[in-house]
Amino acid sequence: MAIGHGDINEFLKLADRMADLARQETLPRFRAGIDVFNKAGMWYDPVTDADREAERAQRRMIKAVYPKHGILGEEFGEENHEATMRWVLDPVDGTRAFVCGVPSWVTLIALEENREPILGVIDQPFMDERWIGTDEGTTYKRADKVLECKTSGLTELAKARISTTDPRRTAIFTEDEKAGFDRVADSTRLARFSLDAYAYALLAMGELDLVIEAGLKHHDYAALAPVVRGAGGVITNWRGGDFDADDRGRVLAAATPKLHAAAKELLIADQVF
Amino acid sequence: MAIGHGDINEFLKLADRMADLARQETLPRFRAGIDVFNKAGMWYDPVTDADREAERAQRRMIKAVYPKHGILGEEFGEENHEATMRWVLDPVDGTRAFVCGVPSWVTLIALEENREPILGVIDQPFMDERWIGTDEGTTYKRADKVLECKTSGLTELAKARISTTDPRRTAIFTEDEKAGFDRVADSTRLARFSLDAYAYALLAMGELDLVIEAGLKHHDYAALAPVVRGAGGVITNWRGGDFDADDRGRVLAAATPKLHAAAKELLIADQVF
Repeated sequence: MAIGHGDINEFLKLADRMADLARQETLPRFRAGIDVFNKAGMWYDPVTDADREAERAQRRMIKAVYPKHGILGEEFGEENHEATMRWVLDPVDGTRAFVCGVPSWVTLIALEENREPILGVIDQPFMDERWIGTDEGTTYKRADKVLECKTSGLTELAKARISTTDPRRTAIFTEDEKAGFDRVADSTRLARFSLDAYAYALLAMGELDLVIEAGLKHHDYAALAPVVRGAGGVITNWRGGDFDADDRGRVLAAATPKLHAAAKELLIADQVF
Repeated sequence: MAIGHGDINEFLKLADRMADLARQETLPRFRAGIDVFNKAGMWYDPVTDADREAERAQRRMIKAVYPKHGILGEEFGEENHEATMRWVLDPVDGTRAFVCGVPSWVTLIALEENREPILGVIDQPFMDERWIGTDEGTTYKRADKVLECKTSGLTELAKARISTTDPRRTAIFTEDEKAGFDRVADSTRLARFSLDAYAYALLAMGELDLVIEAGLKHHDYAALAPVVRGAGGVITNWRGGDFDADDRGRVLAAATPKLHAAAKELLIADQVF
């Protein structure tokens, strides 16, 4: 399929190789254990190291193939700001999971055209799980298993499985945001925490029904939208509009439009988010 | 090594086979997706099914090898109550994770002698991870990788990585318990949630430093103690005494005695737990 500035299949191939490349840098540093102090007794930070080395390698790969594309990465900022096509990179999303040995951290890769994400990859190296989303759909790959992803199709809030990374006010949510999340969560079937971007991958494959978060940066978000939408889900800010990292980085993702609307109503209530 | 009523190596072999057996029942039902409704339109509960079928199979295996041993399981109660040796079974710990597609649920198997756990297995089938603890030590196995586990050795609360399954008062903690957990958590480096028994496995391998929970049943707890202790960790109730499922099922597990003492002091403060 040809899109404005290239071939989506070529972009998909590159994204796949970029995810493989990141694995080479992240996986050996995961659960590095006693290596967190180096020989000089200095603090050694495996997750920052993994993040930086993976992003360096990914930038080199993009530049070799598409030297005119833009790049926005968590670690090394933006290049080619004027480009129509822009890659957005976050080699380790879920750094706190990473440093606790929890395999829910992921590598995020997005490609935007005119700042609209058209391709998203969520990759979990330790479990060998990869979700790839475009307008055409969302695919899950693990070893030799390939699945087309569909959200659960759930429309009733009372049956929903909800997730957020940290439900405590002091962590990410403001007091009003926490109250909003609690109103929704208290109306659902059950809640799970601390999943970071992995939660959106589970939403895309029908295992979670709602994800409500705040405080996401652009590089935390860009890859999520194609994965969730490609599987039939809805992902917006808390008012139903476009995600905005500068407006508290709030995300409301749901399996269906109806569930999204029900959650949005409770989430906002009489607040101005 | 011979112990009071048998050979620990024989018990270990059996526990290993019982964990394999449980995988056959749990893994095919994990992320069963659209199969959660059966043809008649009735609710089909894959996790309860997995729990029951695995426990049935494990009981059959124990009875074939050690017909006089006691068995206490989550699903089917107790058998041979008077026996000195007792197996404690919880084929799916973390049922909420299971139904949300989160691979942190585990199979727990313990063997007790005179009600003291002497062998514990924590098994995560989707990731092919198995922790086996005895007085001799705790071993981690994944594919062809075998590691001896050691806790992190951390003694400073300010650097600790802490975990609990649900930090909200309305979920598991009472108001006083939540206040106690918060006092400790607010003094640590970071907190992760929703890990159930998987958190104790991470503590044993040095990836988490503290786990504080309440509401555990005996079958949730028995396998944890040998895994944590075999790796050099400390696991007690909140007062430093023996775990008691009938006294709110509170657990305080730490990488070192010093960290355990520091956490206990903040946790209890002026409360009577």
